[in-house]
Amino acid sequence: MVRVAVIGGSGYTGGELLRLLLVHDKVEITMVTSREYAGKPISLVHPNLRGYLNLNFSQFSLDKLGDKADTVFLSLPHGVSLNYVPKILEMGMQVVDLSADFRLKDPSVYKIWYGIEHPYTDLLEKAVYGLPELHYDDLRRAKLIASPGCNATATILALAPVAYNKLASQMRFISDVKVSSSEGGAKPTEGSHHPERQNAIRPYDAEGHRHEAEAEQELSRLAGSPVKVSIVPHAVSSVRGALSSSHIWLDQPLDDMDVWRKTAEFYRGRKFIRIVRGGIHPYPDPKYVLGSNFADIGFAQERRISRLTMFSAIDNLMKGAAGQAVQSFNISNGFAEDTGLKSPPLRPV
Amino acid sequence: MVRVAVIGGSGYTGGELLRLLLVHDKVEITMVTSREYAGKPISLVHPNLRGYLNLNFSQFSLDKLGDKADTVFLSLPHGVSLNYVPKILEMGMQVVDLSADFRLKDPSVYKIWYGIEHPYTDLLEKAVYGLPELHYDDLRRAKLIASPGCNATATILALAPVAYNKLASQMRFISDVKVSSSEGGAKPTEGSHHPERQNAIRPYDAEGHRHEAEAEQELSRLAGSPVKVSIVPHAVSSVRGALSSSHIWLDQPLDDMDVWRKTAEFYRGRKFIRIVRGGIHPYPDPKYVLGSNFADIGFAQERRISRLTMFSAIDNLMKGAAGQAVQSFNISNGFAEDTGLKSPPLRPV
Amino acid sequence: MVRVAVIGGSGYTGGELLRLLLVHDKVEITMVTSREYAGKPISLVHPNLRGYLNLNFSQFSLDKLGDKADTVFLSLPHGVSLNYVPKILEMGMQVVDLSADFRLKDPSVYKIWYGIEHPYTDLLEKAVYGLPELHYDDLRRAKLIASPGCNATATILALAPVAYNKLASQMRFISDVKVSSSEGGAKPTEGSHHPERQNAIRPYDAEGHRHEAEAEQELSRLAGSPVKVSIVPHAVSSVRGALSSSHIWLDQPLDDMDVWRKTAEFYRGRKFIRIVRGGIHPYPDPKYVLGSNFADIGFAQERRISRLTMFSAIDNLMKGAAGQAVQSFNISNGFAEDTGLKSPPLRPV
Amino acid sequence: MVRVAVIGGSGYTGGELLRLLLVHDKVEITMVTSREYAGKPISLVHPNLRGYLNLNFSQFSLDKLGDKADTVFLSLPHGVSLNYVPKILEMGMQVVDLSADFRLKDPSVYKIWYGIEHPYTDLLEKAVYGLPELHYDDLRRAKLIASPGCNATATILALAPVAYNKLASQMRFISDVKVSSSEGGAKPTEGSHHPERQNAIRPYDAEGHRHEAEAEQELSRLAGSPVKVSIVPHAVSSVRGALSSSHIWLDQPLDDMDVWRKTAEFYRGRKFIRIVRGGIHPYPDPKYVLGSNFADIGFAQERRISRLTMFSAIDNLMKGAAGQAVQSFNISNGFAEDTGLKSPPLRPV
Repeated sequence: MVRVAVIGGSGYTGGELLRLLLVHDKVEITMVTSREYAGKPISLVHPNLRGYLNLNFSQFSLDKLGDKADTVFLSLPHGVSLNYVPKILEMGMQVVDLSADFRLKDPSVYKIWYGIEHPYTDLLEKAVYGLPELHYDDLRRAKLIASPGCNATATILALAPVAYNKLASQMRFISDVKVSSSEGGAKPTEGSHHPERQNAIRPYDAEGHRHEAEAEQELSRLAGSPVKVSIVPHAVSSVRGALSSSHIWLDQPLDDMDVWRKTAEFYRGRKFIRIVRGGIHPYPDPKYVLGSNFADIGFAQERRISRLTMFSAIDNLMKGAAGQAVQSFNISNGFAEDTGLKSPPLRPV
Repeated sequence: MVRVAVIGGSGYTGGELLRLLLVHDKVEITMVTSREYAGKPISLVHPNLRGYLNLNFSQFSLDKLGDKADTVFLSLPHGVSLNYVPKILEMGMQVVDLSADFRLKDPSVYKIWYGIEHPYTDLLEKAVYGLPELHYDDLRRAKLIASPGCNATATILALAPVAYNKLASQMRFISDVKVSSSEGGAKPTEGSHHPERQNAIRPYDAEGHRHEAEAEQELSRLAGSPVKVSIVPHAVSSVRGALSSSHIWLDQPLDDMDVWRKTAEFYRGRKFIRIVRGGIHPYPDPKYVLGSNFADIGFAQERRISRLTMFSAIDNLMKGAAGQAVQSFNISNGFAEDTGLKSPPLRPV
Repeated sequence: MVRVAVIGGSGYTGGELLRLLLVHDKVEITMVTSREYAGKPISLVHPNLRGYLNLNFSQFSLDKLGDKADTVFLSLPHGVSLNYVPKILEMGMQVVDLSADFRLKDPSVYKIWYGIEHPYTDLLEKAVYGLPELHYDDLRRAKLIASPGCNATATILALAPVAYNKLASQMRFISDVKVSSSEGGAKPTEGSHHPERQNAIRPYDAEGHRHEAEAEQELSRLAGSPVKVSIVPHAVSSVRGALSSSHIWLDQPLDDMDVWRKTAEFYRGRKFIRIVRGGIHPYPDPKYVLGSNFADIGFAQERRISRLTMFSAIDNLMKGAAGQAVQSFNISNGFAEDTGLKSPPLRPV
Repeated sequence: MVRVAVIGGSGYTGGELLRLLLVHDKVEITMVTSREYAGKPISLVHPNLRGYLNLNFSQFSLDKLGDKADTVFLSLPHGVSLNYVPKILEMGMQVVDLSADFRLKDPSVYKIWYGIEHPYTDLLEKAVYGLPELHYDDLRRAKLIASPGCNATATILALAPVAYNKLASQMRFISDVKVSSSEGGAKPTEGSHHPERQNAIRPYDAEGHRHEAEAEQELSRLAGSPVKVSIVPHAVSSVRGALSSSHIWLDQPLDDMDVWRKTAEFYRGRKFIRIVRGGIHPYPDPKYVLGSNFADIGFAQERRISRLTMFSAIDNLMKGAAGQAVQSFNISNGFAEDTGLKSPPLRPV
């Protein structure tokens, strides 16, 4: 049994990690922290977990952590993980960090997007970007896993086969993402107030979304040359699920079967990728992956004007956050990739 | 033209008052106040009103009010209106108060439900409870109108024909109300956070809802004897609309046609009451009154066990708040009851 | 491994059974039938199950069934199961019937509610009503399980402690139920059309809901005397989840702690019942049981007028249908009650 | 008073026309037809209109129409209007056609997109494309108005200032549209079934949407050279409202103020266009135009990689259908453009 601690356990990603780890048969949860709720029962904040665990939230401290955990999941705001990761690693524990702090390889790019000098550039190098479909081998025995952002995950998974196969000569993409409200986290804001958020179709962060940095890093690596990605997110009414519609202007129309084959080949053997094409539900829809770690990938081409759209549908709290973190954790600990992640998506919901 | 001021114009009821009064052809809006947004454009807070008015919110003050308004709509929290109403009346203006401060006639009942001695018991007497279907004549030339609460409105309108006609010997009713999120106002809370509120079916205030006091006052008056009303509200996923299902145990089954006739007779000539029975949509549903001032009234009887349920469906911001306030204002100023309230409900939405 | 067949596998209950049974480690799915989709891949109809099984739907026939299954789950319309159950039992297989055909013990009551003479009254007697919280012992080795209806489940679980403890002298209850759209099944209708159904708060079946027969049967048995139950369902906007607010007039106010204790005692040791009281989420809400087999039970009392409301929240496709069927199946086959049902509820969703 | 007939009055567009025309003070509704509901009361199908009109639906016939109407609104499926329009015009009545039958000027383009030879090419020439922001002058005294499609309206209004001002050298655009369920009409389908449609983020018609033909026709005209438009619609959970996010690759970054100024100048004096930029709600959102005829227009630029996105938000049944038809009707009859269209958007809803 791997003893795990969840640092920052009161948010939605923390709650989703608990939901998964509680029934993960290689794992024992030994510590769950929350600054705000320390001392209070976990089920007070996560009423779905009533009856599952008697643990209270505790205050975070490196001392206590030391003898309690083998792996530490950090579900903290960006800029906060930075301060703990080096010490936790020194103490010999594995870190799965769900913040953006260790996702970018190039410190100068980090500075551009996050506005500060990264204090641990050596760790940027050592960290493995926790997208198992691209970094499976690096993840075996990784000590520091930087788990990707949700919009980045959706965008990269949609575009990876295109970038890798260089399906267009101009490598610039627009990822028009539709996201559900849980992506914004558990903290109420004016914009998340139900009467304002429900029935909204609301663009936001439309002039330089930070996940573009991750997406460009990963897709450029696959293409072997610089790729430009523009992510334009839109808040829609659902609570869970995200769809990326990644639009590409082609040089000329492609053979649909060829696009399908290259996509399928790229993802061959990847347990959490399902290629969707045809049938009653011809395109991916996050509705059909809810509660699971799947990314459904598909595409549509308008041959008349050489437009290709790659779609990817994920559950933003699963493949877009906690599920993917557990998947990477599994690989790095030598467990089957889908340990604790086998439940089919819930439908309809 | 009646010059009107809206005091507390940044909330949902304030916004709805503006939406109605802006196109009301007997009214000129001269002042809209907001403590939080004073000095800022109204359309910043109410983006639906972009292009309709160039007014900024102003800070509330009795001095400025004096020469600017004939009627003052008070859309302030309970306990705040109390302090302004006597002075505004003294200055010769009409008051339409949307808070609970002047709804109850009996000061001792007020104290039980609101926990304080009412400082202006003489005004309690003078105030007219602004439910035009029950107090049309009193409303002509009323100087102080106490506009009813939304759950009270739904409950009273459902049960008035039953109380008036004494359809049961035991005059105690359970009004199981289903309410939309806008009823909770414009201020974000943990419970109104979209991921928490959407898809909830959540009972609240289930052990003594304050609107019971109003409902019992009005229904007892109609019955000529004490009536007991228990209101149990439930938050559901929609943004607008409320349904009261008011359950009654009868002494014996009634003739359905008789219930229908007594209900129709009770509301004869009332412009905003529609009796619903049969057809594709046999019972009232707030979905079909949205954006309008209608209350749709219907019923279902289970003769086998002598259970009667009276339904009433309203738009909580219209018949449950701003629409009803304008209706009362119209009557009290000698205008047709439906001035500015003629648009049919929006459907589907 | 128990070999199971799912007869009627293309609806929502069928799909939910598959979702559960696919990852149930004591079960092998050997046959899934559908009249409409015979010959077509199961994932065409249930896109959430893409990648989980390669089985096609087959046409139902008793012959083929014979050597393929140990247990048969029947997810067929009311009145259809009737014809198959006796033969399947004769062939030595166990039957878990999710229709209403074998739920009522008394043939005369069956006739009143379903309008026909029951052709197999001997089987009515043998069938076990598959509500494990009331019939755990009978379910061990049951050969014919009649799985309860969703609104009946919600109502009975809310009221069982009240009936058993005779908390009121007048044993008549109004169960005001709020139900999600998946309860209506997978077949599109005028009323289920999204623009009509979304944002509706719509009473239906309000003059004699058939689930009352089950509820009265079970609650009368517990009370030891006739109990009257009136169920008034309302369609609300969510896709999954049902809440029963079961209203009771008491003779006099009860001690809240006493109600709590009697409820907790009644359900002591029951794995899928969680008693909810106090905290941030003081009452049950189906939102917090989604995707699980839990029934959350709570209550609110208005002492002033001696009104008690018992709440129960379930996922209508789980504890209200497929989950409960699997729970009963587990018990009857000697497995732990929660085999294949351990995943915590999904939240938020 | 203009006497109007609504042919095809039982759908959502027909219902919305009725909602508007009933309170339009220059109009008298003399006939409303429906093949399916002939002889039945209009409020049976449109329960929001209960109490507004006593008219029944009638069977459509040219004879009866002749002496009853000055203007005929045709809200019929594509390919059906074709057969009636020439005769109605001959009989001297004005036609406002909400189908696609007379929107395209070039018969060869019509054939490509609709698969048949257009039988009345002379009328194609005479018809005025009823987008008043582009064809105001042509609409005065127009006898045949071809009212635009909803996705076309959203796309054209977003892109018109870009095309007119030639803001990019490569005139090809991707309009990623998010649409609500009412856009699909009143007829239930598998895809519109509430449990399937709610919480979906579902691409559809993604390989050659017919509205592209209209959009290319109008935008090419404005640009004075061929423009290519790819429309990719996505079904989201709301009932009303559509947002076009029209993406453009620029040659180089533009000055934001310049984009704003050119957009504002292009739409100067247009009553139903509101330019949105900055504030709490910096981008258009259909939520803030619901129930009104407004199109809110805004934009976001990512200067780093020269991507411009033009946003337009409309109510698909208003500016996207019935509202725009009434606007064109007003202009063509010499009424103020906003007659009967003055109510502000409903909010929140």
